[in-house]
Amino acid sequence: MSLTDLLAVARGDEPADLLLQGGRLVNVFSGTIEEADIAIYGDRIAGIGSGYSARQTVDLNGAFVAPGLIDAHVHIESSLCVPAQFAAAVLPCGVTSAVIDPHEIANVAGLAGVRFMAESSRDLPLRVVVMASSAVPATPMETSGAVLDAADLAALLAEGTVYGLAELMNFPGVVNGDPDVLAKIAAFAGRPIDGHAPALSGPSLNAYAAAGVQTEHECTTVEEAAEKLARGFYVLIREATNAHNLHPLLPLINPANHRRICFCTDDRQAGDLLGQGSVDYMLREAIAYGIHPVMAFRLVTLNTAECYGLHDRGALAPGRLADLMIFDELTAPRARQVYAGGRLVAEEGRIVPGLSLASPPIPAAIGATMRVDWNAVDFRIPALGQQVRVIGSLENQLVTEERILPARIAGGEAVADPARDLLKMAVIERHTASGGQSLGFVQGIGLQRGALAGTVAHDHHNLVVIGADDLSMLTAARAVGAMGGGLAIAEGEQVLARLPLPVAGLMSDQPVAAVAAGYAELLAAAAELGSPLHDPFMAMSFMALEVIPKLKLTDKGLVDVEKFGFVELFVDEGDGMTR
Amino acid sequence: MSLTDLLAVARGDEPADLLLQGGRLVNVFSGTIEEADIAIYGDRIAGIGSGYSARQTVDLNGAFVAPGLIDAHVHIESSLCVPAQFAAAVLPCGVTSAVIDPHEIANVAGLAGVRFMAESSRDLPLRVVVMASSAVPATPMETSGAVLDAADLAALLAEGTVYGLAELMNFPGVVNGDPDVLAKIAAFAGRPIDGHAPALSGPSLNAYAAAGVQTEHECTTVEEAAEKLARGFYVLIREATNAHNLHPLLPLINPANHRRICFCTDDRQAGDLLGQGSVDYMLREAIAYGIHPVMAFRLVTLNTAECYGLHDRGALAPGRLADLMIFDELTAPRARQVYAGGRLVAEEGRIVPGLSLASPPIPAAIGATMRVDWNAVDFRIPALGQQVRVIGSLENQLVTEERILPARIAGGEAVADPARDLLKMAVIERHTASGGQSLGFVQGIGLQRGALAGTVAHDHHNLVVIGADDLSMLTAARAVGAMGGGLAIAEGEQVLARLPLPVAGLMSDQPVAAVAAGYAELLAAAAELGSPLHDPFMAMSFMALEVIPKLKLTDKGLVDVEKFGFVELFVDEGDGMTR
Repeated sequence: MSLTDLLAVARGDEPADLLLQGGRLVNVFSGTIEEADIAIYGDRIAGIGSGYSARQTVDLNGAFVAPGLIDAHVHIESSLCVPAQFAAAVLPCGVTSAVIDPHEIANVAGLAGVRFMAESSRDLPLRVVVMASSAVPATPMETSGAVLDAADLAALLAEGTVYGLAELMNFPGVVNGDPDVLAKIAAFAGRPIDGHAPALSGPSLNAYAAAGVQTEHECTTVEEAAEKLARGFYVLIREATNAHNLHPLLPLINPANHRRICFCTDDRQAGDLLGQGSVDYMLREAIAYGIHPVMAFRLVTLNTAECYGLHDRGALAPGRLADLMIFDELTAPRARQVYAGGRLVAEEGRIVPGLSLASPPIPAAIGATMRVDWNAVDFRIPALGQQVRVIGSLENQLVTEERILPARIAGGEAVADPARDLLKMAVIERHTASGGQSLGFVQGIGLQRGALAGTVAHDHHNLVVIGADDLSMLTAARAVGAMGGGLAIAEGEQVLARLPLPVAGLMSDQPVAAVAAGYAELLAAAAELGSPLHDPFMAMSFMALEVIPKLKLTDKGLVDVEKFGFVELFVDEGDGMTR
Repeated sequence: MSLTDLLAVARGDEPADLLLQGGRLVNVFSGTIEEADIAIYGDRIAGIGSGYSARQTVDLNGAFVAPGLIDAHVHIESSLCVPAQFAAAVLPCGVTSAVIDPHEIANVAGLAGVRFMAESSRDLPLRVVVMASSAVPATPMETSGAVLDAADLAALLAEGTVYGLAELMNFPGVVNGDPDVLAKIAAFAGRPIDGHAPALSGPSLNAYAAAGVQTEHECTTVEEAAEKLARGFYVLIREATNAHNLHPLLPLINPANHRRICFCTDDRQAGDLLGQGSVDYMLREAIAYGIHPVMAFRLVTLNTAECYGLHDRGALAPGRLADLMIFDELTAPRARQVYAGGRLVAEEGRIVPGLSLASPPIPAAIGATMRVDWNAVDFRIPALGQQVRVIGSLENQLVTEERILPARIAGGEAVADPARDLLKMAVIERHTASGGQSLGFVQGIGLQRGALAGTVAHDHHNLVVIGADDLSMLTAARAVGAMGGGLAIAEGEQVLARLPLPVAGLMSDQPVAAVAAGYAELLAAAAELGSPLHDPFMAMSFMALEVIPKLKLTDKGLVDVEKFGFVELFVDEGDGMTR
């Protein structure tokens, strides 16, 4: 398609490929609903208005048309699907673009992982904008499968693999001017740079902004979000499987500030995408809350396009990509048809027959990433004191509490105590077979018996295990090892359910529906074992993430995130002495 | 200034250079007024909030602080001043950035002209963003002093002289896919691209948008502006000396669409800048009209910064440039102090003493541009018919009317008829001494006697003369020639007033106040000769611009802009026959 040809269609001198006739357009520029036809040529909108002819005409009969939705920040790996199957899940929702941070796979497979995500996405009808993972590893307090320095990230930018710099999770490093972190920022001068700074405020927040960070998706309160917005950050409101920030933050949004607010999903598992949806769910909830529909659409279209400088999308206008969704109810938009680049890609909630969503073969570097020294695995915790620091997991939050509780001692060991929802947690190094591991306790998962294990453990993705007894923990961990990575749930010597994730131990190579079904089996088994959580596996996966307060466990030890250092498991170890 | 040092100040670990304490900030992100201190380090804002210390503290006592204003589109040459003196005029208004199109000087001196403007601006406290003039010449229906093709413009971009592509005045060329015009657009892919398409609508407007044009500053009605905004153009509302579009377009602006609207001055002469102001005048008028002050500020700050991707300005936020204005009345903002890059540059309407506003020496290629074959100059019009096409000039509009009127015939010649405000107009080629000239008639200038002449004649800047008699016209024209370019007014053999413009025949090398005073003398003389216009010289300068409808006169002939071709002066020449 040449520009010359596009102009001929726009002028009306040549017929369009496709004419969507008689629609009511969500005009995110004017803030109004506009009755007009849309003439499409190739992958672009050629003209809006009346008087166009086309080789194919679709009569919309007054249905609404909106720009394709954009997810402002998502880790595709959290869907447990490869990009093609993630696309299969979100395209029917009207989502036609996603800004992704491949930092899960980057922490396992480094540059090869980032390139795999970019190559897997290149030919998809979903437009995947790949950001360069800035925190691999997230901190020195973990063992990751790779280290990406500023030169690595600059190489990804130079070769065209990435578009901007992904969330700067090492916010203390930014604020304090860590030279390695500033070198990454410098390598992306003039490009979009994403943030991640939960609860950062005041002068520290000023420093984070001054460094050039442009977005923030970790806000949990209106007060926090309002401060960040006032300091110049785009606030990306998140509704993830395990972090429900949308409803608490809806009161933030008003006509005077909404241009700096976007929606994102961050981490959503396959079942939630298929059941509830993606950012389209957030859009519906925002409208139901009372936000003007056109304003709500901006949060998932124009605002995000402007935030990331994606000026070829985010609106229905001549010259922009013909990515759009057709729907019937302005107060509850649910995509009836979805077009990407002028092609019908989804209808009535399903990908259209014949649409190619092929995935390239899995390179060896990504398909065999499970390296555990099983001889070193040992879940016993010698009772070095009476009081332990317990990770207090909070449902639908990524932040945890630190709770000081009396340990349950048996046979000289501190053991799990399901009666108090006090479960044992282990993180086993799985990238280099170093034999490294660490142990601790967690509340809030709610298993009465049995154990969960998985290689999805943000962001280092070591093997994490949480259980009510050591035998169940070992059974679950071994099951994951046998699959070359994945998720498993066990009781005693019996594996109750398992989901293989052979792609870096993070993603399945199966269709999204199969992944969702397998995941549902895991959740059902967890519920059977007593967990009341919507998703204890995703909750588990964030208990090892030492960049979100307060207390987390990595393969190297128990981390107090606010102090940015290790702490002892036993508060009173050696009668109050510390190492 | 290193980022490391800036972060230390932002954190509060090191003192700021300057602390503006106790101000009320216009927060264009949140849409609110916020009480906060501003800590400045080097040329940047380091922090906003409280608790900062600094080497120098200024107590604002509750005064308001807003981001420095941005003029979205201006031809500095129209002030008749070089960039340093333009800066002297607008900095005291609170204007700290201007997006300029140097196409006046480009039409006279080509690449050397564009480079001169960029080099003259580089070290100014006013941030001048130079766009590459896209229409040199504007059309083939004129003789310009230079031709800039796509390769020339690409070279300017590659060398860093320009930032984007300036107004695509050849809008028929864009719409119709002229390969030369599309090559210019292609050279600026991914960069800001400005438009200029008066009255363009419907499918043609769609084509203009589809080509990648992003802004439009030629709207004259709310209906026109609303259509352009809905099709994705940023609408730059203009209030020039000779095009008063602000008040007619103020009803366009509402909370739902204002993010895509900016203010610009386009062409303002020195006296208007010193008397009325720049975009700050437009800001005050918008607020007086009833637009919320913070929303009004966005039209001259954040919106323009976003439109042009100038993300280092347009808002008060950590990391952005410390360009700001301090003022006392939110309902009528008038800059009391202006800071640019953290330095006080203007106070109480004046540039601060000692501020360097130096201008580089004028290169020979720009200082000697007047080349007229005086032997070929002849203002006589043989009466080839009875009815003439007259250019109908409309006050405060750039568009003209075509009026068919009976000629006044004397001695076999068509002559001026001041009683009907029918004046003679001549355009004399002055770049190559080719001897080319053309003649016509104009209404709306209102001289009862005498003549005006000048080398400011958009956009080719040939020597234009309008007068009530041929002798006065020759005297005025000769006076301009003797100055090496400029403006003059004469009656009979007497020159009544003159303003030398030795810089390309467009700009003075004198201070702005002297230019304004000299210009005022010209206007006074024109009023004395009977012209009722606010500015007949600026009106005259647009009578030769063959890209704004309807009828214009270039050195090559009378142009019907809508037909995009030449027309005869005499409607009935040779008894209805045409050449």
